[in-house]
Amino acid sequence: MEIERKFLVPSPPDGLDSARSEPIDQGYLAIGDEGEEVRLRRLGEESYLTVKRGRGEVRTEQEVTLDREQFDALWPLTEDRRISKTRHWLPLGDLEIELDVYAGELDGLVTAEIEFESEDDADAFEPPDWLGEDVTDDDRYKNESLATDGLPD
Amino acid sequence: MEIERKFLVPSPPDGLDSARSEPIDQGYLAIGDEGEEVRLRRLGEESYLTVKRGRGEVRTEQEVTLDREQFDALWPLTEDRRISKTRHWLPLGDLEIELDVYAGELDGLVTAEIEFESEDDADAFEPPDWLGEDVTDDDRYKNESLATDGLPD
Repeated sequence: MEIERKFLVPSPPDGLDSARSEPIDQGYLAIGDEGEEVRLRRLGEESYLTVKRGRGEVRTEQEVTLDREQFDALWPLTEDRRISKTRHWLPLGDLEIELDVYAGELDGLVTAEIEFESEDDADAFEPPDWLGEDVTDDDRYKNESLATDGLPD
Repeated sequence: MEIERKFLVPSPPDGLDSARSEPIDQGYLAIGDEGEEVRLRRLGEESYLTVKRGRGEVRTEQEVTLDREQFDALWPLTEDRRISKTRHWLPLGDLEIELDVYAGELDGLVTAEIEFESEDDADAFEPPDWLGEDVTDDDRYKNESLATDGLPD
């Protein structure tokens, strides 16, 4: 189980160009009516299939590595449900921020995700000034929502 | 695009034991609200991931081979949406019947599917006496329905 908070980033901080970064392309093969989703992701040279099932507390997730041939065969079936972004990894004290700069139809959107060891740590976190609105509980900013519905109004 | 007809088989024909057959286990990772489905299938020693998207005329399908490690990692996420059956291939003139004998919760169900080259051939087909009700258009007998809803009443 992951404990994360997610923020909008109105204006990315300095030093983004020197941070470690990778392009990410991801698309959804299926988004089910019982909270399940099947996602393809290409991160740098690696390809993955990720399956999530269930909701809330009982959510299960499994990821497997795909070879290029498998990925290329399946990718066309994610048409109209894709996201393209560049992920930057930024240190913040003992934490690490995953800062995603979206491209294509989501151009202009920048988000930051931070993973915590515990709920207490997550609650106690004091975001730096450059982090904007907390959208942790806003479903419109989930990647599967962005891939199907686009940018929130 | 496949042109098929599907029948219930109240009483399987003689000679089933000598027909070529393979055990099939299949489970659904996702069944989406826009007609998409993601299926895992193990047929004999081979493992597959099959993705279908769209409805009716624009339905797209893609199948890739999985290695055993990939299959084993993903299989647990098909819990509660599985089917186990033995497929028999029976010649019938120039045609071939895929006769599926279901096991587990679907024990007692036997279906036969026949693929045709054209709509005309499918319409003109005269089923032998041992083929029962034509359930080609009965969604309750689709494998994804059987896996989620069980046997029709």
